[in-house]
Amino acid sequence: MQLALSTWQEVEEYLQKSRGIIIPIGSTEQHGPNGLIGTDHLDAEFVSRGVGEAIGALIGPTLTIGMSQHHLSFAGSITLRPSTLIAVVGDVVKSLMRHGFERFLFINGHGGNVATVTAAFDEIYATTSLAGPGSPVRCKMVFWSGGPRCSALADELYGDANGGHATAAEVSLSQYYQPDHIKLAQMSPKIAPKSTGFYDSDDYRRRFADGRIGSDPSLSNPEDGKLLYEAAVEDMVELFKRFVAD
Amino acid sequence: MQLALSTWQEVEEYLQKSRGIIIPIGSTEQHGPNGLIGTDHLDAEFVSRGVGEAIGALIGPTLTIGMSQHHLSFAGSITLRPSTLIAVVGDVVKSLMRHGFERFLFINGHGGNVATVTAAFDEIYATTSLAGPGSPVRCKMVFWSGGPRCSALADELYGDANGGHATAAEVSLSQYYQPDHIKLAQMSPKIAPKSTGFYDSDDYRRRFADGRIGSDPSLSNPEDGKLLYEAAVEDMVELFKRFVAD
Amino acid sequence: MQLALSTWQEVEEYLQKSRGIIIPIGSTEQHGPNGLIGTDHLDAEFVSRGVGEAIGALIGPTLTIGMSQHHLSFAGSITLRPSTLIAVVGDVVKSLMRHGFERFLFINGHGGNVATVTAAFDEIYATTSLAGPGSPVRCKMVFWSGGPRCSALADELYGDANGGHATAAEVSLSQYYQPDHIKLAQMSPKIAPKSTGFYDSDDYRRRFADGRIGSDPSLSNPEDGKLLYEAAVEDMVELFKRFVAD
Amino acid sequence: MQLALSTWQEVEEYLQKSRGIIIPIGSTEQHGPNGLIGTDHLDAEFVSRGVGEAIGALIGPTLTIGMSQHHLSFAGSITLRPSTLIAVVGDVVKSLMRHGFERFLFINGHGGNVATVTAAFDEIYATTSLAGPGSPVRCKMVFWSGGPRCSALADELYGDANGGHATAAEVSLSQYYQPDHIKLAQMSPKIAPKSTGFYDSDDYRRRFADGRIGSDPSLSNPEDGKLLYEAAVEDMVELFKRFVAD
Amino acid sequence: MQLALSTWQEVEEYLQKSRGIIIPIGSTEQHGPNGLIGTDHLDAEFVSRGVGEAIGALIGPTLTIGMSQHHLSFAGSITLRPSTLIAVVGDVVKSLMRHGFERFLFINGHGGNVATVTAAFDEIYATTSLAGPGSPVRCKMVFWSGGPRCSALADELYGDANGGHATAAEVSLSQYYQPDHIKLAQMSPKIAPKSTGFYDSDDYRRRFADGRIGSDPSLSNPEDGKLLYEAAVEDMVELFKRFVAD
Amino acid sequence: MQLALSTWQEVEEYLQKSRGIIIPIGSTEQHGPNGLIGTDHLDAEFVSRGVGEAIGALIGPTLTIGMSQHHLSFAGSITLRPSTLIAVVGDVVKSLMRHGFERFLFINGHGGNVATVTAAFDEIYATTSLAGPGSPVRCKMVFWSGGPRCSALADELYGDANGGHATAAEVSLSQYYQPDHIKLAQMSPKIAPKSTGFYDSDDYRRRFADGRIGSDPSLSNPEDGKLLYEAAVEDMVELFKRFVAD
Repeated sequence: MQLALSTWQEVEEYLQKSRGIIIPIGSTEQHGPNGLIGTDHLDAEFVSRGVGEAIGALIGPTLTIGMSQHHLSFAGSITLRPSTLIAVVGDVVKSLMRHGFERFLFINGHGGNVATVTAAFDEIYATTSLAGPGSPVRCKMVFWSGGPRCSALADELYGDANGGHATAAEVSLSQYYQPDHIKLAQMSPKIAPKSTGFYDSDDYRRRFADGRIGSDPSLSNPEDGKLLYEAAVEDMVELFKRFVAD
Repeated sequence: MQLALSTWQEVEEYLQKSRGIIIPIGSTEQHGPNGLIGTDHLDAEFVSRGVGEAIGALIGPTLTIGMSQHHLSFAGSITLRPSTLIAVVGDVVKSLMRHGFERFLFINGHGGNVATVTAAFDEIYATTSLAGPGSPVRCKMVFWSGGPRCSALADELYGDANGGHATAAEVSLSQYYQPDHIKLAQMSPKIAPKSTGFYDSDDYRRRFADGRIGSDPSLSNPEDGKLLYEAAVEDMVELFKRFVAD
Repeated sequence: MQLALSTWQEVEEYLQKSRGIIIPIGSTEQHGPNGLIGTDHLDAEFVSRGVGEAIGALIGPTLTIGMSQHHLSFAGSITLRPSTLIAVVGDVVKSLMRHGFERFLFINGHGGNVATVTAAFDEIYATTSLAGPGSPVRCKMVFWSGGPRCSALADELYGDANGGHATAAEVSLSQYYQPDHIKLAQMSPKIAPKSTGFYDSDDYRRRFADGRIGSDPSLSNPEDGKLLYEAAVEDMVELFKRFVAD
Repeated sequence: MQLALSTWQEVEEYLQKSRGIIIPIGSTEQHGPNGLIGTDHLDAEFVSRGVGEAIGALIGPTLTIGMSQHHLSFAGSITLRPSTLIAVVGDVVKSLMRHGFERFLFINGHGGNVATVTAAFDEIYATTSLAGPGSPVRCKMVFWSGGPRCSALADELYGDANGGHATAAEVSLSQYYQPDHIKLAQMSPKIAPKSTGFYDSDDYRRRFADGRIGSDPSLSNPEDGKLLYEAAVEDMVELFKRFVAD
Repeated sequence: MQLALSTWQEVEEYLQKSRGIIIPIGSTEQHGPNGLIGTDHLDAEFVSRGVGEAIGALIGPTLTIGMSQHHLSFAGSITLRPSTLIAVVGDVVKSLMRHGFERFLFINGHGGNVATVTAAFDEIYATTSLAGPGSPVRCKMVFWSGGPRCSALADELYGDANGGHATAAEVSLSQYYQPDHIKLAQMSPKIAPKSTGFYDSDDYRRRFADGRIGSDPSLSNPEDGKLLYEAAVEDMVELFKRFVAD
Repeated sequence: MQLALSTWQEVEEYLQKSRGIIIPIGSTEQHGPNGLIGTDHLDAEFVSRGVGEAIGALIGPTLTIGMSQHHLSFAGSITLRPSTLIAVVGDVVKSLMRHGFERFLFINGHGGNVATVTAAFDEIYATTSLAGPGSPVRCKMVFWSGGPRCSALADELYGDANGGHATAAEVSLSQYYQPDHIKLAQMSPKIAPKSTGFYDSDDYRRRFADGRIGSDPSLSNPEDGKLLYEAAVEDMVELFKRFVAD
């Protein structure tokens, strides 16, 4: 059940039986020679919607732009500054709290969001922690690919060549979601340099010339994407059920 | 050409021939008994993508959440505070300026965004105006339905029954975009009360019991939606061409 | 009754009979060759005080500086950034709410304030809308010249030559308010270029060399100013009465 | 020379011969039983304009609202939070720097502004100090009554009964500026309690029941106001000349 | 009793008998040729801890970085912008309010903090003053050297040569606190230039070449430091007792 | 070499040979029945100073207060909101950049800081990434206990009983640093409950009644602390050398 495709009366009914919602969050940033700029938010959205279809969970609007300052040396990348993303997450959660939501699962597609979104949760909790007892609100962020089934599958499919950015798995998933937008590109070197850390966007580009980190996404294909999708949805269904029951 | 479905190399190429980009912006808020909560951003996205297909314009990520404080008394509505939305628009524009973009057309689906997004543009310009001459950046916001063809058509189709919120036209367009999510609902009264202004969300709900303002969206249908789509795309194509040439 | 010229005991008495207050708001920005830099706030203040004298409405402090980034290429212009003006309007309204005021009519002299002050109202309402029902506060902004009598009169006096910035009408009004500061200047061209939009301050100056938009303020005179004043006060009296009764 | 009553061309000429400007700043807050709510900004404005007339100094817009949180328990008082006032002062100074102004003298009427406006200056300097050498900008704040002539005169006229808030001197000055708004009130006790410090607005009201601190403004009269005005203008003329020459 | 060296259970017990806490605050900034960069926070911390030992007052964490923009032209100086320091002081006070603290005495070592920390207190009070009656919170800031015993002693020891920055007294105190870090340096001129005010960091350095203002800290020695320490602790003990009893 | 115990001339000399600095960062929050509220910042400071002594690295001021919202239900805990801590870290780094520092190693004692401080680094980089190439600045955060020697030693000493908060290792280290402040307390249960996550401060207290997570700090002793100190200093020396050489 997608929030955007529901009426307010349908949401009112949903709230009779559940206080939980899933918010897909990703990024708009370069993903190497054959990865889509939207890979992270497309993947998070795709898996989230799969959970929505599987168990009727409510899926909120996809937060398409994340914390991507390190990709700004590659054309088309967009970042929210951490302070902006903290404000966005806070407003989304507080708006939904107004209606009675209490469990917020952010299904994430982008490593660069983790620190800032965690800080955003703490900014929300700081308000209630300073005010005293009584808030029922709980926020959690997980990677769509972080559950046991999906991470085992990615390991099995690509091993080390999955990599750290523009991974083989995330490109495969987006190819299955967007089959009309599969890109072909030579990878040179076949496996991109591994990361030993990076700082701002120019430092990043100096280290990772075509944008990839440690990956060979020429291995990606929509068939793998289908398998990853099914594994991820199963993982996330399980996780969301546990989270809202907690 | 959708930014999210492109690689960074494709964006680099695009920048060889154009400095313009379209950003769809809408809201996530109640749209009456048969309107989708995502109506405003779905419509803006749909028309924007039509422009992208028609003339190869680059379409940025849809800003799905707008300034919707006045709808918070209806379940599922989400708002960004004006200060947050100003920060978001600023970060998006500044990120894209980094790559060389200079013309930003925001195709909008939500009246409640106008003041805040205009203020966001002025916040961007204030920086360059305080710094002195030299910035080539220009931002513009228009309604997808605001061009001559589309507004004439909406008048012709619905006259006064089009209304001010949850309009017949915007519901028709979303029905054409999302045919699997057409909702049926009785409208009572058939035409919702007209607006003489409103303040916060509880004031809004007191005035407009089911969320609509002045509209009869039981008139909506996907066939109308198709006609509105074609008119709006033509309008926006013309407008974007003029804007980037300026 | 001017707030600045009252004691706190007098305000306490006023609150026994009314919950409404008028806040004049304008700008400090160039107004062409013969317009005063303070035109917008002087005019708003003058009309507001007229309303105060006519019906005993309480008139708050004039907000003399507005959102004027687009005028910064002309000497003497001062802007508040939108984020600053939003904070100012919020603090003023919240301070007065503390005393029991509930109806805030901003009588405005500057088009550039509209978006930002509207956003400021929404920032105030967002707090109450996120918190839940119960706030009685209502804010409204109108142009001193926007009522039926005054706009008809301006049309009649100047027709198209009234223009969009440094208008004949606003200069006339300020000449009637400040007869010792009437400036003489040749207008060249007689009617300034019309606006098709503008962006930052340097873009503005490129388009409008002497600062005027579409106006011929050499037509201005204090006698017209008197007529405009009387019409505007009548318009605003009517509007304020309706607003506080609502 | 008042900025609000000048054209931009006149300001451009002024900048040929001076880089200095005076900004009157005060408050909108209770001033006891016979003091006007606008006393602080009226007095600052009046003395500033006197300096403008005496030596042709440019006088900017009066900042009518200051940091007055401690007066909010008295009807009609308005405060800007310190963070807001810091933003306002920053925007005013940066706007004027754009035109070439380099010496900013804030003539102040309100003790409660001192800390915040000093912090605002440091916020401006922090930017240039972090950026490295080169900024010519200097800001200074003084009380209209703080010069040698005026403070000696106030001592002579009222001695200890001048007090700390709603002082006899500031009320006299405003009576001379606004002779039509002289208020009559019994003072009880005749001299208000002296201050040993205060905290928020309710603490303030507990300590100072009618709003005055240590003063007997029943001594005030417009004749004294005239003398104080002349002394203050002379003091400020001297000070401004020294400041711009530095 | 130092907060940092206590357990939470010990603090809980402390709150049974007192609602007061001392927060040492200083700076990290140049202190001339023989003054430590930490002088201000070391001195404030040292005296505060002395008070803690003398009467069992709870001493919070030392705020080691203050508002020091004017020292940034000297290596090693660090500033918080006023807006940042306002946020820090607010968070510290609000956190401790959560536990029941109501009297906050900031023992300060740095003149440059006064305006900003006072503004921070007003930012805290503004929240309660806007909300209405009821807050018991009181904040106060004093110089460690500002009490009667200590200021008399400093006068007696150094007279005019104590100076305004990198004072003989503050250097002596830090020498007594940190005897292993006594620096030797020639002072040239022996007494640094007196201050007639300063603006940003480059202006400061132009005026005060080695960082000192009006002082001769070659007079400093740890024996004086001991005397100053004892006087300051006695002064602050008296002051804190009076403050918490109020 | 401690910044606080140096003169500005000594820092100027240091900058001739190194562009690197270490900033200890911790928290002020409950650490269970026998852990000091300052444990995290004391430990980080102690190890950092050890590195300073070992290789002459410059050690900046200890940031004693971190992001500790989840501990606010225990007396004495203080938090900076994430947005405040982001501002603090930004100001510290920018101040030191002004002097020529380019490598910032934050030695951290508190897990709750990781997300926010990482976000703070991204906020700094976002500015340079949006501006374009050229910034040499690099920030890194590590746990004092995170190096190979120290983590192996903690495993060896305590195994699973080291735990997640109020760990045996961190309490041992603080006992070695502050031998006069060793606290005795019964642990009940002996090993605290393990964490499966937590949200705001009341949720935290519900889960972890005495504040500990998964630890048995009754095992702690200053002798272990000495061993841990030596291992940590060696680890951090190695890491800092590599970092500044990069």
